[in-house]
Amino acid sequence: MSQSAPDHDYPTVLAQIRTEIQPLLGQGRVASYIPELAKVRGDQFGMAVVTLDGEVCTCGDARVPFSIQSVSKLFALTLAYQCVGDALWQRVGREPSGNPFNSLVQLESEQGKPRNPFINAGALVVTDVLCTRFVNPETALVEFVRRLSGHATLQYDDRVARSEMATAERNRAMGHFMRSFGNLHNPVDEVIAAYCRHCAIRMDAVDLARAVAFLAHGGVNPWNGERVVSASTAKRLSALMLTCGTYDAAGDFAFRVGIPAKSGVGGGIVGHIPGQLGVCVWSPELEPSGNSLAGSYALERFTTLTGQSLF
Amino acid sequence: MSQSAPDHDYPTVLAQIRTEIQPLLGQGRVASYIPELAKVRGDQFGMAVVTLDGEVCTCGDARVPFSIQSVSKLFALTLAYQCVGDALWQRVGREPSGNPFNSLVQLESEQGKPRNPFINAGALVVTDVLCTRFVNPETALVEFVRRLSGHATLQYDDRVARSEMATAERNRAMGHFMRSFGNLHNPVDEVIAAYCRHCAIRMDAVDLARAVAFLAHGGVNPWNGERVVSASTAKRLSALMLTCGTYDAAGDFAFRVGIPAKSGVGGGIVGHIPGQLGVCVWSPELEPSGNSLAGSYALERFTTLTGQSLF
Amino acid sequence: MSQSAPDHDYPTVLAQIRTEIQPLLGQGRVASYIPELAKVRGDQFGMAVVTLDGEVCTCGDARVPFSIQSVSKLFALTLAYQCVGDALWQRVGREPSGNPFNSLVQLESEQGKPRNPFINAGALVVTDVLCTRFVNPETALVEFVRRLSGHATLQYDDRVARSEMATAERNRAMGHFMRSFGNLHNPVDEVIAAYCRHCAIRMDAVDLARAVAFLAHGGVNPWNGERVVSASTAKRLSALMLTCGTYDAAGDFAFRVGIPAKSGVGGGIVGHIPGQLGVCVWSPELEPSGNSLAGSYALERFTTLTGQSLF
Amino acid sequence: MSQSAPDHDYPTVLAQIRTEIQPLLGQGRVASYIPELAKVRGDQFGMAVVTLDGEVCTCGDARVPFSIQSVSKLFALTLAYQCVGDALWQRVGREPSGNPFNSLVQLESEQGKPRNPFINAGALVVTDVLCTRFVNPETALVEFVRRLSGHATLQYDDRVARSEMATAERNRAMGHFMRSFGNLHNPVDEVIAAYCRHCAIRMDAVDLARAVAFLAHGGVNPWNGERVVSASTAKRLSALMLTCGTYDAAGDFAFRVGIPAKSGVGGGIVGHIPGQLGVCVWSPELEPSGNSLAGSYALERFTTLTGQSLF
Repeated sequence: MSQSAPDHDYPTVLAQIRTEIQPLLGQGRVASYIPELAKVRGDQFGMAVVTLDGEVCTCGDARVPFSIQSVSKLFALTLAYQCVGDALWQRVGREPSGNPFNSLVQLESEQGKPRNPFINAGALVVTDVLCTRFVNPETALVEFVRRLSGHATLQYDDRVARSEMATAERNRAMGHFMRSFGNLHNPVDEVIAAYCRHCAIRMDAVDLARAVAFLAHGGVNPWNGERVVSASTAKRLSALMLTCGTYDAAGDFAFRVGIPAKSGVGGGIVGHIPGQLGVCVWSPELEPSGNSLAGSYALERFTTLTGQSLF
Repeated sequence: MSQSAPDHDYPTVLAQIRTEIQPLLGQGRVASYIPELAKVRGDQFGMAVVTLDGEVCTCGDARVPFSIQSVSKLFALTLAYQCVGDALWQRVGREPSGNPFNSLVQLESEQGKPRNPFINAGALVVTDVLCTRFVNPETALVEFVRRLSGHATLQYDDRVARSEMATAERNRAMGHFMRSFGNLHNPVDEVIAAYCRHCAIRMDAVDLARAVAFLAHGGVNPWNGERVVSASTAKRLSALMLTCGTYDAAGDFAFRVGIPAKSGVGGGIVGHIPGQLGVCVWSPELEPSGNSLAGSYALERFTTLTGQSLF
Repeated sequence: MSQSAPDHDYPTVLAQIRTEIQPLLGQGRVASYIPELAKVRGDQFGMAVVTLDGEVCTCGDARVPFSIQSVSKLFALTLAYQCVGDALWQRVGREPSGNPFNSLVQLESEQGKPRNPFINAGALVVTDVLCTRFVNPETALVEFVRRLSGHATLQYDDRVARSEMATAERNRAMGHFMRSFGNLHNPVDEVIAAYCRHCAIRMDAVDLARAVAFLAHGGVNPWNGERVVSASTAKRLSALMLTCGTYDAAGDFAFRVGIPAKSGVGGGIVGHIPGQLGVCVWSPELEPSGNSLAGSYALERFTTLTGQSLF
Repeated sequence: MSQSAPDHDYPTVLAQIRTEIQPLLGQGRVASYIPELAKVRGDQFGMAVVTLDGEVCTCGDARVPFSIQSVSKLFALTLAYQCVGDALWQRVGREPSGNPFNSLVQLESEQGKPRNPFINAGALVVTDVLCTRFVNPETALVEFVRRLSGHATLQYDDRVARSEMATAERNRAMGHFMRSFGNLHNPVDEVIAAYCRHCAIRMDAVDLARAVAFLAHGGVNPWNGERVVSASTAKRLSALMLTCGTYDAAGDFAFRVGIPAKSGVGGGIVGHIPGQLGVCVWSPELEPSGNSLAGSYALERFTTLTGQSLF
């Protein structure tokens, strides 16, 4: 509850966090399954807080662009929801998976309907919706994220996208598997290409903290006043982030951190505190579930030090 | 965020909800696996809101006692956490299961460590902790719930407990299975007996709304000022309720309702809004996941009509 | 043991079987997942026995060509084993799967190594071996089966192959999934094309009974004297047929019929009795596991009436 | 096929095998989950062949008694089949499991019906049948095995039985689990006690080779002329041994050895060649699937050196 802490000294908090996470650098592992990602220096750390009135506080490498990877699933979901609304939930569920993000097991027992839009299979269905709606789904998504962040030139990294396409066999397997159940409408190769491109969007922590702020702001983009989704949808997407946003560690993340968040294997984690702020932390080394090791801890410390969380 | 809605007219809200849920009565199914539970009339509905300053609003059958069943897992967890603290998490996880509440599958692949304390296997581990700590664990738990609710004479229903013990083969299976992994320390029969008794506690919606209020109040019992758990633990237990409290529908529940909650197959659901209130709804007919059908909808309407939720 | 029954009156036995299976026609379901297969008339039944000294006995539709489908897995395996020998077993196991023939679940827990060469995933690995060894793997296999059967003009049905390719999403999923584990070396599309073509080979029951006879004859083609595989390999392939040749009903089939066999969803089942004969039965209607309903029963009656089985 | 090898020089063959297996001693691991079993010296090896005309050939430790463990499942199944006939198959299947012998996973997805009588769950159902039919099921089974082997004083080892009962939590879990599905009729503790006792029967390799000979002899006990089961049933039980008798290595065992066999974690494996002989090998060190390491290899060499196998 935020009512008791009106004036958070974010610069001091971020500086303290940056000190506290130092011993964790070197303890995790940079994602290696995509060659281009494996080249990133592991000991980087940056964090950005953007309040709804526009204050920006940062520490460390908050202006170093990185590959947002699965964080893009949040933006893709929002855009797909704009396109088809609640019909989306006919094709993808809203339950935690209790399984690794790229498992095919549940897909088999649940007839090709992914558990939620934040596991790979679910994000492929979301991307399929975008492929049906847009001629260039990756361009549509890039433009959408530009508006959300106010950063008019951000782009996806084609080298990373190609690197990922070359190693996307398991995602292709999921795509064909869902097609066998009738739950993918566009050719698998097209969906995979769009998916790999939106995962390859490059942003820095400040951009991402700004881009997620519409969820803290009742669904309205605080930077241009546009309504992105209804207030009710903003709440619901936030609930989904809390229960499913950090892979098979979502329960633990909610327990320790207590805010809606979405992570990516590039080491980024975005989150927000309703009515208050957007936040992004980035550190490339991951814990075994695929979330940034130092990033998770930094967010845990942030909610503890500021006394802000949902609960 | 509740700051914009200081004066909720709860009596009007509850009256409206009671009207709205009428068409749902008869649409679900009363739990039948325990003979004693199957005898309950299905078309009952009651709801109670208790604010932290002690205001009590009710509608319908809010003063009809019912079998709290799995709602007791929340109280057992709190008491066990009082006993052993974070050591508890060595024996039970904090992740949604992505499986029915009584599945043994994950237990096998995860070496006898249940995914969370709100599935049956996890609650058996929690009960095992109580069996180690207390000579009469069910008495200890009953007294704990009496203090939380301020209702000094509540008790478990021995007939329901016996009925459940007679049909507890799957829970016994889980108990022996966990013992085979070394994760149950007391004899299975003792743990099952204590478990069935605390599931058989009888309370009404007002009692339960009062009993859960300590979580909304930073871990302090609002009725007698006792600290039950730390503020941090209260937040964390609430996070666990949100991600795991309503069986394999927790994601959907968070999405639609958006508050920490715990349900039971007796048809009760307790929840709370941090800093504001405890709430309990009861209606015996269940949806397929095991949550009260009318109860889930009533809570969804409650957060919508009052504009109160976590997000 | 056959020593006590030197003179089997096969014509009489086959005539009796044909009468006995009549009530089963109409009880099963013709495979419908490939449109071309769904067009076959379901009430057909043919059976052929070919003894090692060349006697041919038939009944019913034994000269009606049909799509051999998964029976081709036996020939593909034999040819792949000729190519790479025991190295094959590094890439595919020899255990019954305990799962439907097209499941991806085990593939995930066993790191992309299929349980055996008679489930789809295993046959794709076998086909991958052929794709590496032959420029036109389907032509190589067709020629191999021509030599085994002595039928010089048999061919695959391109319409069936195309029909299958158009609906092969689940097989494509398996292909990409195995590629993600490094267990498929050629492009998935090439492997799938070769696989669908060899499944689409058209043969009649007499051809197939002749083609399988090398296994009853110690690995030597009885019709031209060529050694196909060593005597030891012939025994081992036969053992594999017994334990894995009839999908997830292999245990039951061994129990009731007791001879090495391989079935296909086109309704064909080939089998043999070591030292004695090759046999093929065909009837398009399947039981739920995917084996010919009347065909399974016909073989059960055959081993009972002639007193011939392995055991 | 044995017709080409009328005079097998078994003493020479066994002597050669004994030499060949020496390098394997020390390569496996003695079963340690039951304390009493863990005490057995691992480097022992014995083998016995008993032909249907009564010739007995042995090598090594063929007269050292050992704990037959799961080999008893074969005798229990035969006795239970005598009691209830084909009705047994309503309660237990005949398919390989594709899973470790003590897995609970399949039991859940297949509604409490074990895949076959040779995995633990299936053997508990078989034992349940015996508990219903006999006041002292373990005594009935011991007497049954005495008649089969002609060894009138063999007995179970009570110390081993008690040791196993003390560590039978997983089997208890299965028992309660099956009771929850209605597929266990007697109290779990009674069934477990009977089960542990028949697993604890002590026999030597000669006794066991004699006891299995009825299956090679068309269902008739060759030592006293009693019919044990029909010829058809003998064939069918043999088929079940081949497909399911050696845990999750049954496919590989059939492939390499090619005879019906049943193994136990005490290190014994019994098998037979229809019309010819019973065989037993014993060596306590196991491979990872739970079969005797040297024993499996000895049987592989036996069928290769004598040219005898089913195929």
